[in-house]
Amino acid sequence: MVLIMKEIITVIRPKKVNATKEILVRLGIPSMTAIPVLGRGKQKGIDSEVNIEYRAGILEQNKSGGMKYVPKRYLSIVVSDENVDTVIDAIIQVNRTGQIGDGKIFVCPVEDALRIRTDEQGNDAIN
Amino acid sequence: MVLIMKEIITVIRPKKVNATKEILVRLGIPSMTAIPVLGRGKQKGIDSEVNIEYRAGILEQNKSGGMKYVPKRYLSIVVSDENVDTVIDAIIQVNRTGQIGDGKIFVCPVEDALRIRTDEQGNDAIN
Amino acid sequence: MVLIMKEIITVIRPKKVNATKEILVRLGIPSMTAIPVLGRGKQKGIDSEVNIEYRAGILEQNKSGGMKYVPKRYLSIVVSDENVDTVIDAIIQVNRTGQIGDGKIFVCPVEDALRIRTDEQGNDAIN
Repeated sequence: MVLIMKEIITVIRPKKVNATKEILVRLGIPSMTAIPVLGRGKQKGIDSEVNIEYRAGILEQNKSGGMKYVPKRYLSIVVSDENVDTVIDAIIQVNRTGQIGDGKIFVCPVEDALRIRTDEQGNDAIN
Repeated sequence: MVLIMKEIITVIRPKKVNATKEILVRLGIPSMTAIPVLGRGKQKGIDSEVNIEYRAGILEQNKSGGMKYVPKRYLSIVVSDENVDTVIDAIIQVNRTGQIGDGKIFVCPVEDALRIRTDEQGNDAIN
Repeated sequence: MVLIMKEIITVIRPKKVNATKEILVRLGIPSMTAIPVLGRGKQKGIDSEVNIEYRAGILEQNKSGGMKYVPKRYLSIVVSDENVDTVIDAIIQVNRTGQIGDGKIFVCPVEDALRIRTDEQGNDAIN
């Protein structure tokens, strides 16, 4: 059994989560974990959509007295090495609008994966 | 000082978090971070318990107009290499019900750990 | 293009998030992701501040019938290798109070980073 997997982390707009899930299901990637997060980057965009996200962020910010941030979704998808490029391409296809705030993708090493119910390991655990 | 640590990530049922914490405390693992997340996997189970989780997920889903997902808890536990197998066995012992949705475990590399208060590093920081 | 990056994860007090963001912006680190989490460690401190955090935790705990935990913020900051020490020092400077509960820092490998909007990779994606 070969255990070569990566965790693909992507931080995207909340409204793009469903389209991202759908394309991954069609690609045969059944599993992911989604976390609501607050992101901060170079997002000083002037387009209206980003401004809407900014206003939401600013409302939150006023409550806590802090700096600007934007609600995002953090998705963690563990895939076998051979699927990394396919998943990255799919995320870009669905999430690229060309406007600031499209988000980022990170690829991190995973040394082992295990399905609790069955003891399946590695690629068997994630598929 | 040797810095050989792993991050054990497990995505489990919310109602199993307390039992998981308790067994880890008994094993001398004092630290963890818990995050409420939404998981999606092969969970098309037909047992009643999973159906309850599904109904909760479907309610959420209808609000957002999206796909099915199930509330889970994401636990991150950084341990020294020598404790990895013990912690994995304990997580399985507490979380395996045999029903779909028991969750997964991932093992990821950690290169350094530091306790902010004391500058303790490596295993001293996590114990 | 060299892709040498690390993910710096820090779990800190919620009220220290803004000061942490501010010092990182001043250092030219523009991006981070923040997640509300529940932490558990050796936090049996007796100072009043920790006790306030504890009471909040205990209220939550009574609702769920579980063990003690403390609300924390989990920050993920992906930086180039050359900035790792600077960022760690800045986090310590802002977050060290000397009281139990100051938090921890973990350094994890990142193999690739990508800005969805532009296809920028590596250090260009995170700066």
